[in-house]
Amino acid sequence: MNNRTSMGLAQFLVSSRLEEMPDVLIHEAKRSILNGFATAFAGCNDAVMDRLITTLSEFSGRPLASITGRKERFDVLTAAFLNAVSTNVFDFDDTHPNTIIHPTAPVSPALFALGEYQTFSGRSLLEAFILGVEVECRIGNAISPGHYKRGWHITSSCGVFGAAAAAGKILGLDAERMVWALGNASAQASGLVETLGSMAKSVGVGNAARNGLAAALMANDGVEGPNRPLEGERGFLKVTSESPNFAAVVENLGNHWELSKNTYKPYPCGVVLNPVIEACLEVAKTPGFDVSQVRNVTISGYSLLRERADRPMVETGREAQVSAQHAAAVCLLYKSASLNEFSDEAVHRKDVLWLRKKVDVIVDEAAVAGAAHVVVQCADDTILEAKVTHARGDAERPLSDKDIEDKFRDLIVYGRSGLDPEPVIDAIWRLDQIEDVSDIMVLARR
Amino acid sequence: MNNRTSMGLAQFLVSSRLEEMPDVLIHEAKRSILNGFATAFAGCNDAVMDRLITTLSEFSGRPLASITGRKERFDVLTAAFLNAVSTNVFDFDDTHPNTIIHPTAPVSPALFALGEYQTFSGRSLLEAFILGVEVECRIGNAISPGHYKRGWHITSSCGVFGAAAAAGKILGLDAERMVWALGNASAQASGLVETLGSMAKSVGVGNAARNGLAAALMANDGVEGPNRPLEGERGFLKVTSESPNFAAVVENLGNHWELSKNTYKPYPCGVVLNPVIEACLEVAKTPGFDVSQVRNVTISGYSLLRERADRPMVETGREAQVSAQHAAAVCLLYKSASLNEFSDEAVHRKDVLWLRKKVDVIVDEAAVAGAAHVVVQCADDTILEAKVTHARGDAERPLSDKDIEDKFRDLIVYGRSGLDPEPVIDAIWRLDQIEDVSDIMVLARR
Repeated sequence: MNNRTSMGLAQFLVSSRLEEMPDVLIHEAKRSILNGFATAFAGCNDAVMDRLITTLSEFSGRPLASITGRKERFDVLTAAFLNAVSTNVFDFDDTHPNTIIHPTAPVSPALFALGEYQTFSGRSLLEAFILGVEVECRIGNAISPGHYKRGWHITSSCGVFGAAAAAGKILGLDAERMVWALGNASAQASGLVETLGSMAKSVGVGNAARNGLAAALMANDGVEGPNRPLEGERGFLKVTSESPNFAAVVENLGNHWELSKNTYKPYPCGVVLNPVIEACLEVAKTPGFDVSQVRNVTISGYSLLRERADRPMVETGREAQVSAQHAAAVCLLYKSASLNEFSDEAVHRKDVLWLRKKVDVIVDEAAVAGAAHVVVQCADDTILEAKVTHARGDAERPLSDKDIEDKFRDLIVYGRSGLDPEPVIDAIWRLDQIEDVSDIMVLARR
Repeated sequence: MNNRTSMGLAQFLVSSRLEEMPDVLIHEAKRSILNGFATAFAGCNDAVMDRLITTLSEFSGRPLASITGRKERFDVLTAAFLNAVSTNVFDFDDTHPNTIIHPTAPVSPALFALGEYQTFSGRSLLEAFILGVEVECRIGNAISPGHYKRGWHITSSCGVFGAAAAAGKILGLDAERMVWALGNASAQASGLVETLGSMAKSVGVGNAARNGLAAALMANDGVEGPNRPLEGERGFLKVTSESPNFAAVVENLGNHWELSKNTYKPYPCGVVLNPVIEACLEVAKTPGFDVSQVRNVTISGYSLLRERADRPMVETGREAQVSAQHAAAVCLLYKSASLNEFSDEAVHRKDVLWLRKKVDVIVDEAAVAGAAHVVVQCADDTILEAKVTHARGDAERPLSDKDIEDKFRDLIVYGRSGLDPEPVIDAIWRLDQIEDVSDIMVLARR
């Protein structure tokens, strides 16, 4: 079967139908897409978007396609690029836990851009989205954890296949052309972990959406690829991994769905900080709590928490996203853990600097993974404490639909598009009843 | 120095001037560019160009930029993509021997496209071209031979850095922004050997030119990259190679030039076949030689010749390019070894099939690398033979300027653009006197 990985996957993609997919999966697709629009609204006016738009405006074709939260129009490929950038720029989008792929950013923007070029329904979009996510996450599974560890930015390097598969499904490619689409995507698979923390990360993620969409359009026009782009001796899996698990790409297709494992972040931080944030918010909300009286704060948890997040000194918002000291300080000071509290500006505030210094992170060998215990000692020797075992956003405590809606409402304000969140939220929940998906972009653009 | 690879390279690029480069190097740049236009003219009407144009026409922006040998106009990024495709589609372009990079295809098309967007001189183009080739070949040296062997299509994966550096030089980037350009290129570095032999190869090569140009334009507009895109722990060199030689990127910069080692193919074949072709052409041109009387043909040479090229059965033009049997047959039959003799059609001709069967390839342990001995036995027992030690196109017997001009004239006919080669040839030899490089594309387009 190792020499039929690409063709086996392509045949599954061609034959799969939304009618055969479980309702709970279709609902998860809506949750992912809603969460993706939320983070795109948050990122739509970020500096990287302005700068990339400056460059790409000069070369864009017919302005058919819209940008979430903005008024400019671009050609379909450029719009796919830019909406993937805004969705992922803060790493506040969704996470497929096994691979750390952010699955929505490369796939959903490619599909919505294609929807402003060809007319298709919300049901077709949901079908293609579910399949695209399946492709990128299964390819990711086949090469995890070595691929990311080696230095591949897996959202980009695998995302291009997801976008190609999703767009290929909308275009109605047959199995041979679907393999070509995967092959054209393989020629464009890129993205390095070294770029994380810089704007160049967004260039990789934008390309995953743009180039995946282009790969499918090219295959549709007869641009032929190799027969075994994934499993070939010099194909994607062997070149970018030491010991690919070919079977992971095709086993149990149609019975098991990767999208069902998708998770959504409640806070714009590394997930190890989630229980720290919740414990600190609990302490901060104690009646009579006076932050000016805090003498010291001790955070204890499993060893990974200290390994990843013991960072008393931070200089940028991005570093703050993985600093337990910073997270504790802002939660106790502002009773909030939104993008505002993890901005470049926030890390240099005097009160934050003052409180960050009082925070220690220690390892509790007995603590379970994902748990944190926060103890705050005040000037009058009162002790306030809180323990969190499973934070929101964990697989054990997934965000509710209402949580994702509230995240959407917060982020649309943060992103300053001035748009009303309610019609977009409402339309995404009704996606399976919408005849023309470009209706959504009409609501989401300025 | 290992943590200054990217910045060291960038500082060199920013400070280098054509005035300090040897004349022979500048002449080699013209030879490379001339050879690149020759192969672009050959490939401009290939099926892959037609199909890619079908796809990309829909999304192209302002039609400022020209396509060699064709009448369509595209935006600057799309033109860079398409001209890189036509330059490399037949693998008949130039070769940097140590890396097997085809250096001109990603760099020259990016610069000529940029020249239809901004006005600059032939001297600026030559300076930027030399530097771009230096960057891609030095990065290639640092990771060869493991990178290609692993399955990276090195012309694409390293070419994107060459295009970024060359375009960045024209844009006048400072060292910090030049590092960003390299970083934006690193996020887009892709290309797999698995795609060779299919049209998807061209998608990778086209992107090397397009995305490298975009990387520099983005850096110019403030899109920031990482500080160490090449040498970082999760940067390009470590991710795509087991044991990168960092020093190869920066040592002896400005004293030693990689472009000076560039080679040009006289025949559209794997280089191991060059001596076979020349020996067979010599036999075929023997007065009185009658191909219908050939009883058998024996080719002997060093072991690599048989390893790479002992292919009695071939089904496609691309396979024929690495078949000693096919090469011998067409040379003896048609006294020629041009693209016409290595087409899909040519491999199925009856006379070729008949003669191919009579050819044997044997190893002569005493033969030197690069040599071949051809012995033709005829029906009347006459023996005709020829020995070639160094074929044309080898480093020891480089193509003359006149050889490259003749190749250009042949290929412009092959490509059916209907254009006159002489004004283009003349203009490229005078490149250092041209005020506005877009004048060249006016001559090279329909």
